[in-house]
Amino acid sequence: MRFKFPLMAIGLEVAMIILFGLFVQYETDQNILQPPSSSNSTDVDRFIHLYPLFQDVHVMIFVGFGFLMTFLKKYGFSSVGINLLIAALGLQWGTLVQGILHSHGQKIHIGIKNMINADFSTATVLISFGAVLGKISPLQMLIMTIIEIAVFAGNEHLVAEIFMATDIGASMTIHAFGAYFGLAVAGVLYRPGLRRGHVNEESVYHSDLFAMIGTLFLWIFWPSFNSAIAEAGNKQYRAMVNTYFSLAACVLTAYAFSSLVEHRGKLDMVHIQNATLAGGVAVGTCADMEIHPYVSMIIGSVAGMVSVLGFKFLTVYPSHAGSCSGFFHRNSHCWRADSRFNSKVTYLGTAI
Amino acid sequence: MRFKFPLMAIGLEVAMIILFGLFVQYETDQNILQPPSSSNSTDVDRFIHLYPLFQDVHVMIFVGFGFLMTFLKKYGFSSVGINLLIAALGLQWGTLVQGILHSHGQKIHIGIKNMINADFSTATVLISFGAVLGKISPLQMLIMTIIEIAVFAGNEHLVAEIFMATDIGASMTIHAFGAYFGLAVAGVLYRPGLRRGHVNEESVYHSDLFAMIGTLFLWIFWPSFNSAIAEAGNKQYRAMVNTYFSLAACVLTAYAFSSLVEHRGKLDMVHIQNATLAGGVAVGTCADMEIHPYVSMIIGSVAGMVSVLGFKFLTVYPSHAGSCSGFFHRNSHCWRADSRFNSKVTYLGTAI
Amino acid sequence: MRFKFPLMAIGLEVAMIILFGLFVQYETDQNILQPPSSSNSTDVDRFIHLYPLFQDVHVMIFVGFGFLMTFLKKYGFSSVGINLLIAALGLQWGTLVQGILHSHGQKIHIGIKNMINADFSTATVLISFGAVLGKISPLQMLIMTIIEIAVFAGNEHLVAEIFMATDIGASMTIHAFGAYFGLAVAGVLYRPGLRRGHVNEESVYHSDLFAMIGTLFLWIFWPSFNSAIAEAGNKQYRAMVNTYFSLAACVLTAYAFSSLVEHRGKLDMVHIQNATLAGGVAVGTCADMEIHPYVSMIIGSVAGMVSVLGFKFLTVYPSHAGSCSGFFHRNSHCWRADSRFNSKVTYLGTAI
Repeated sequence: MRFKFPLMAIGLEVAMIILFGLFVQYETDQNILQPPSSSNSTDVDRFIHLYPLFQDVHVMIFVGFGFLMTFLKKYGFSSVGINLLIAALGLQWGTLVQGILHSHGQKIHIGIKNMINADFSTATVLISFGAVLGKISPLQMLIMTIIEIAVFAGNEHLVAEIFMATDIGASMTIHAFGAYFGLAVAGVLYRPGLRRGHVNEESVYHSDLFAMIGTLFLWIFWPSFNSAIAEAGNKQYRAMVNTYFSLAACVLTAYAFSSLVEHRGKLDMVHIQNATLAGGVAVGTCADMEIHPYVSMIIGSVAGMVSVLGFKFLTVYPSHAGSCSGFFHRNSHCWRADSRFNSKVTYLGTAI
Repeated sequence: MRFKFPLMAIGLEVAMIILFGLFVQYETDQNILQPPSSSNSTDVDRFIHLYPLFQDVHVMIFVGFGFLMTFLKKYGFSSVGINLLIAALGLQWGTLVQGILHSHGQKIHIGIKNMINADFSTATVLISFGAVLGKISPLQMLIMTIIEIAVFAGNEHLVAEIFMATDIGASMTIHAFGAYFGLAVAGVLYRPGLRRGHVNEESVYHSDLFAMIGTLFLWIFWPSFNSAIAEAGNKQYRAMVNTYFSLAACVLTAYAFSSLVEHRGKLDMVHIQNATLAGGVAVGTCADMEIHPYVSMIIGSVAGMVSVLGFKFLTVYPSHAGSCSGFFHRNSHCWRADSRFNSKVTYLGTAI
Repeated sequence: MRFKFPLMAIGLEVAMIILFGLFVQYETDQNILQPPSSSNSTDVDRFIHLYPLFQDVHVMIFVGFGFLMTFLKKYGFSSVGINLLIAALGLQWGTLVQGILHSHGQKIHIGIKNMINADFSTATVLISFGAVLGKISPLQMLIMTIIEIAVFAGNEHLVAEIFMATDIGASMTIHAFGAYFGLAVAGVLYRPGLRRGHVNEESVYHSDLFAMIGTLFLWIFWPSFNSAIAEAGNKQYRAMVNTYFSLAACVLTAYAFSSLVEHRGKLDMVHIQNATLAGGVAVGTCADMEIHPYVSMIIGSVAGMVSVLGFKFLTVYPSHAGSCSGFFHRNSHCWRADSRFNSKVTYLGTAI
């Protein structure tokens, strides 16, 4: 029994190495077939050009998501530690699955966009992780990572290349998808006995400060997240500016509504740790469009408000009601609010 | 009473959205009136070029200042949480006020320099926040943010465009201004009853480690702060190099003098958290000039020394003596030392 | 007695300032002697181009190494605080010593590569610091910093310019050198009385989360570390990609073997904090070569495995056995594993 996890981890890594040996090449390996040209130098130029954006996203994935969920006293180290494990596996597997789908059977040439997209596919699993943390063993997490990223890549391929829908910050394909997938897995894993596990729900003072490390790095670098794979030039510029103002506006309404709905006007730290990020998710779908800064701010304001209200008042779906034991009430509420809102904003975004 | 804060926050955000709708446009909207030219592509090029520097400053504002003041046991979460609220409001308002002053009544075109300057105007409020933390309600903080940034932008406009003074790292306009403004507000808000509030002054072990997160990110990215809006090329290069060496030299003297003035040669963590940053402030005014690296190091060394000594021995001004109850003794001492020193260094800088 | 440390620190800073005054100039000061040309503008262009990579390395040095060793309850603040002191001194001294060796007696012109190399020389001392933390006074640390960086710079000059060995990520010259130097100093400082000092070995829950901040920032930015001074273009691109995949693969095997060797399959946090980084060290020597991504992943996988096994089973060398009192058992084991492995990988790397 105790050898299952290490053997699975080693087996998966061996499989990754074999698949990389078969399918993955350097971007510069293309040169062998074609004469050196300016288009090749552009590839490597773009690499160093986008590398700072890639590192911003990388910080979000490993520090941001990792620390965001440390607010639970008992799961602090698990949250950061398992986050690293999942993300490290996920980026290898994401590189492969997305690469195979996009390259139409040819070799995968690793460029900076592959690396950013691999981080994106990892984000999906980390969002689902929020809904299943504490209910699922590390072994099950490895399996969930493999399955979810495969489904995500297929779904994303469908949305982007078949439906031709625009979703530059990947709010639909990453955030909504990740949230619903996590809830579905939580439902499947439901065991009534877990309902009594409320003791781990407590958060303590320092846990909240650790969680703020996660929140702040996610908040700061979200403009990089929404713009990293946008078309260079005006579109990338607009994705940065729109996300920046949407996030700023979102903070004000998140604080205001947190104070409104809480007992005696106090702020709830969990709202602040989560709802302040809703502006980044909400504007994601249409971030690169010419929507004007004030519209981004309206989107962000509404997102902050809806996220706090959803978190506070949304009833858990009957089918999941029992399954969300312990701290999941908190967590999955939040993501559900995000994802629900998301689908609304998506329509709003495309309507504009 | 309890609805005052949320209503004010929502009201301010609505006002921001209306003002942005009236005054703010994308940088690229200029194209509509003029034929596409190389100068336009340069704007967007400069955006992606300076974006990593902007993100460094952004980390300083939200993680650096946010965690710097967590060393107080009771105010840890308030420090990080209110810091985020103020900064999010401040950057929207700063964009507007600075934009209106600089654009002389025309539309504001959001470029990377506007975003960096908005973060700068926010820094002013966060420095003042250090002198009033614990004495002021979130509602009062919102009002202070609006007033202080308006005064700051006017003052900065005066210094930079009317007096034509050089202050590339904005040591005078941001740091000295922010420190004095905060002390003035603290004086106005003085209530004798607060003097007994010493219990919250205690810092605990982990609080000090959280505060070091703030210190380190401020220390690391200060070269970006002092160079972000410098003229591209040699001036920007010198601003980075001078700040880098000034900060390094400052650490040595801050540690040395902390050990000298403390009981039995122990280091005082509060000195280390604050005086190690004095080198960045002190060199700010003249960072882009050809002062030579060794002069930067002299400036940094003196700044580290003066900051520790001022912190330890400077008597609080009689008019503020009573007002700085509880932990403010610590904090405002420090910033006062900085700001005093600052005005001296300013003369030194311009003399060179 | 108590004045020794401050006087030494001030004396060293004064010496640095004098040496900088004599030897160090801006990169742009070269222009005075030669007419302005395109090569000059390239220097400053390269500065801003590599500045984000420099800042990544800077975060690794001050936040990464600083927090990595906070896992020990009692040494948390010392670890972060002394790390800052050593690094601030080290980067000034490293700039001088490396500059003098590379410039062959001419003036040192500070460019971005000097600043990156100064951070590298600092890394050596911080690695040794891990083996002597708690056994050595701040005063002794200052002396060790001066001596070690001088020896490092001589050694690095020998390896790179006389032997012409390739070591792009400096795994040999920094990591192996730093580890052995630290162990040697620990051996020299050995006093039998220290053996009873096991009480400080305890780590507590929050210490482990602080240490994860260090681990994650080191892990995230290691591709920047290995590529920062690589030749621009394909070599730099490959250094980033190879390090990225080596690190990802390393995480999987580190977790797997940690679970295998520990009691009842639990993960050991100390393994995760350290062995997950072995992939970055191991691939360092050959990171810029055309080794193919799957070979990087093999190197990383083996490094993660060897690091955990070495940490668990390697007997301490007899000569050091007694010297590693208290928590050093943990720490020096780890680095020894790394450094041992390193020398093996070095052969592997050059064989390829």
